[in-house]
Amino acid sequence: MTALRQDGFLGGRLHLWQPAAGYRAGIDAVLLAAATPAEAGQSVLELGCGAGVASLCLAARVPGLALTGVELQPAYAALARRNAAETGLPLEVVEADLTALPAEVKAQSYDHAILNPPYFRRDRGSAAPDPGRERAMGEATPLADWLAAAARRLRPGGRLTAIQRAERLPEMLATLSPLLGSVEVLPLSPRDGRAAKLILLRARKGRQGPFRLHAPRTLHEGVAHPKDGDSYTPEVAAILRDGAALSWPG
Amino acid sequence: MTALRQDGFLGGRLHLWQPAAGYRAGIDAVLLAAATPAEAGQSVLELGCGAGVASLCLAARVPGLALTGVELQPAYAALARRNAAETGLPLEVVEADLTALPAEVKAQSYDHAILNPPYFRRDRGSAAPDPGRERAMGEATPLADWLAAAARRLRPGGRLTAIQRAERLPEMLATLSPLLGSVEVLPLSPRDGRAAKLILLRARKGRQGPFRLHAPRTLHEGVAHPKDGDSYTPEVAAILRDGAALSWPG
Repeated sequence: MTALRQDGFLGGRLHLWQPAAGYRAGIDAVLLAAATPAEAGQSVLELGCGAGVASLCLAARVPGLALTGVELQPAYAALARRNAAETGLPLEVVEADLTALPAEVKAQSYDHAILNPPYFRRDRGSAAPDPGRERAMGEATPLADWLAAAARRLRPGGRLTAIQRAERLPEMLATLSPLLGSVEVLPLSPRDGRAAKLILLRARKGRQGPFRLHAPRTLHEGVAHPKDGDSYTPEVAAILRDGAALSWPG
Repeated sequence: MTALRQDGFLGGRLHLWQPAAGYRAGIDAVLLAAATPAEAGQSVLELGCGAGVASLCLAARVPGLALTGVELQPAYAALARRNAAETGLPLEVVEADLTALPAEVKAQSYDHAILNPPYFRRDRGSAAPDPGRERAMGEATPLADWLAAAARRLRPGGRLTAIQRAERLPEMLATLSPLLGSVEVLPLSPRDGRAAKLILLRARKGRQGPFRLHAPRTLHEGVAHPKDGDSYTPEVAAILRDGAALSWPG
């Protein structure tokens, strides 16, 4: 990770350093932050925070949070610290393996755990050429370990919020069902009527509500468009450009 | 089960005997039949066939199938036999517990297994007042046993097709993931933009395709309507009234 660049998020309210090549957070991290129903005074643990984009977008929307980001890769952890310092947002970064969290994290239970785990299974497909990107995208740690670590760190009633590829829903449900309840899935469809490529998932510790499969939210207007960035639905545009919250169905 | 009545299905192409009270198949069984991609010459096993509505709707749409229905309750098995005889459709009914299938069924492997298992868990909520209805709705046999029995009876490449309440998707995926691959879920939304209450699920034995979460199909037009029967979407009306197939996304 040599060259860095600053990317604008939330309509330019946040400028965050990311590597110019390698793994770079995009709209997924912003959607995750928007979908996290955190309130002032609450604690948030992000596993695999990368350069801190999701946590810092959440901190920008909800004042008065105490955020902790865990990141394995030293270069990304350093970027997250720098981004927190330059934006003045309350993100503490812990450089650690999420399967061996340090005592300071294990001693605490959190109101929220958020995660945007690697999308691709290491045992399928080829590795990314950039090692940092490969690590962030390619799942050195199994998805089940991510979810179990997040569930363990929640207080009773605490909420997990995650974004992941739709094709990994079976693994997510298999891991979470014994650990958390009131699981809800919000499919994210690229366009109206298309299969979801991404899902938002949330669940609560110690709750017994039934599983809910919500109607999808659509990311882009219209049938097809050469420049996707110009075609976000009003709801998604408000999230990405104005820092709005994503409202879960009641 | 004393009083019987004949109900019309597929726009009156089929008239099938059902108990006037107790468990009665409705549109769910017809949607299941429509969603089963069976072709002439293939074999189909239905677990828990009740009065035979799903299998007979399938037989009415696709000529040249060999259908076997397994039903635990003698009175429903007798109705299914009577319905098969009176319609002249090729459904053989086996009165048996699906967790202890007779040798004639166990000796065979099928191109398709279809099932519309009980929707409600016996350990939650109250029992239905009619014992036949309670048995059909209330799950004496765990859902996992239904799915495992169906999966075992499929030939390599054979397909399972099921309809179930959306809230039971986690259990279904947990059971099926080790047994079958290429799992696809088609949510059925009561109205556009509403959460799915029902899902259609299909999967194939010995296939490794990724899980797919399709865009929902909508059952009813409009926002709300006092008489749901008048408001089916054109696709669903064609299934229920003209016996059309349900086309899965490609």
